[in-house]
Amino acid sequence: MGEVLKKEAYGLAVKDESGVISPFHFSRRETGENDVRFKVLFCGICHTDLSMAINEWGFTSYPLVPGHEIVGVVTEVGAKVTKFNAGDKVGVGYMVSSCGSCETCTDDQENYCPKMILTSGGKYYDDTITYGGYSDHMVCEEDYIIRIPENLPLDATAPLLCAGTTVYSPMKYHGLDKPGMHISVVGLGGLGHVAVKFAKAMGIKVTVISTSDRKRDEALTRLGADLFLVSRDPEQMKDAMGTMDGIIDTVSATHPVLPILDLLKYKGKLIMVGAPDKPT
Amino acid sequence: MGEVLKKEAYGLAVKDESGVISPFHFSRRETGENDVRFKVLFCGICHTDLSMAINEWGFTSYPLVPGHEIVGVVTEVGAKVTKFNAGDKVGVGYMVSSCGSCETCTDDQENYCPKMILTSGGKYYDDTITYGGYSDHMVCEEDYIIRIPENLPLDATAPLLCAGTTVYSPMKYHGLDKPGMHISVVGLGGLGHVAVKFAKAMGIKVTVISTSDRKRDEALTRLGADLFLVSRDPEQMKDAMGTMDGIIDTVSATHPVLPILDLLKYKGKLIMVGAPDKPT
Repeated sequence: MGEVLKKEAYGLAVKDESGVISPFHFSRRETGENDVRFKVLFCGICHTDLSMAINEWGFTSYPLVPGHEIVGVVTEVGAKVTKFNAGDKVGVGYMVSSCGSCETCTDDQENYCPKMILTSGGKYYDDTITYGGYSDHMVCEEDYIIRIPENLPLDATAPLLCAGTTVYSPMKYHGLDKPGMHISVVGLGGLGHVAVKFAKAMGIKVTVISTSDRKRDEALTRLGADLFLVSRDPEQMKDAMGTMDGIIDTVSATHPVLPILDLLKYKGKLIMVGAPDKPT
Repeated sequence: MGEVLKKEAYGLAVKDESGVISPFHFSRRETGENDVRFKVLFCGICHTDLSMAINEWGFTSYPLVPGHEIVGVVTEVGAKVTKFNAGDKVGVGYMVSSCGSCETCTDDQENYCPKMILTSGGKYYDDTITYGGYSDHMVCEEDYIIRIPENLPLDATAPLLCAGTTVYSPMKYHGLDKPGMHISVVGLGGLGHVAVKFAKAMGIKVTVISTSDRKRDEALTRLGADLFLVSRDPEQMKDAMGTMDGIIDTVSATHPVLPILDLLKYKGKLIMVGAPDKPT
């Protein structure tokens, strides 16, 4: 534990567009007066990490230390930190800072701040590149640290910090969080499976939609979804027309949207959280 | 005028998928107790009429009398009609009936009623096919007749009954109707040009977005738009990022949406009213 108090850090980095990841020694800043330093215990793998690793979007800076679903235990806090103490279980998602004063920051939507700084591959105020959670420890301003409740297993908590909030946030914002509603989740990957779990926890009837039957058991048995629809079966889709209060479409690949729209009830809502790489 | 009181009607019909239109004699029902009969003076041409004429969507019944932006003068009203009298200027849009009792009908959104009957090419209660406005007169239930204010020129009013409401309705529903807002209208065709005019009448700053400079003069000079952006010019698009409260995208052809999304301010709204023929 002593080591993580120092600036020296050890992690895994991608050095070029090959995407190959290898050991990497680097340093992190000293614990500033508003900073929280914590030992990293778990870190999720998000598809964005993979896209960034191979420079799929053209703006990756190497070396890249991926990881933005980071969970650990606080080892040190700065002099002005008020909300955390050593020993606290904490996490960091995909942002480590923002301006704090713009319209979006004052509306608690710092993720939309034009000056928001990403956790991995972002440019910090001192012009250094931010290094993500594939490392032994992290340091981050208190305001971007999330407390993790004692009753949550830390390994399963990590993916909530990006995948989880990506579906939870729009479900809350658009009101798809009411018991008795019927929603469908399109695609059962990293985003879809947490969407199903959130919706079931909210008392919502959940239909999982997938292109084949392959994930039927996982949806119904393991995740507790109520119904399973194969999107390529026109009869199944027709029978479900007009039955959904909302749809959470987690598919990033280009796919037909109009058949999905037909599933919505009057004033139903389609939420698309997948960003396709091709224009649609 | 006497002729239009009778059941016999005369119009123009498409007989097959060639789309060729030719004279057509047919009959309309007698004026029922809740019906309004009117002489047709003007009728708009909507792209849907063209698609239906050539059976583009596979469900056209021939003969097809197109036309669902219909304007005229009342010649006869049924015994129980209370809102209209002979001589009134009236119009009919794309629906001539609905169930009147479902969730959507009781919410004044009859266009979403599952039993809604289209003005042209729909199936009426007596199993006859509805004939549209390319005819000498129309008969329609009072509740689906719209009064036209005295100060509106009838020819220019016709397109408001479909194209107009297609953009006006979502602008109102989504709150893109406030003075001082900045919205953009993508595509300057039948829908786009009325969107610009509505927005300007609401006191909104309007940017027209098109793929080329070809419609710049029409947008700025004739329709009074404030700005014009060429969507294929990355510099122009970049300069406009984050400046729009809302976007009304009227383009039916498949086109890139992500560059348009970037134009929105925080919590901005993208309204897509074009229905592409290919899945997106």
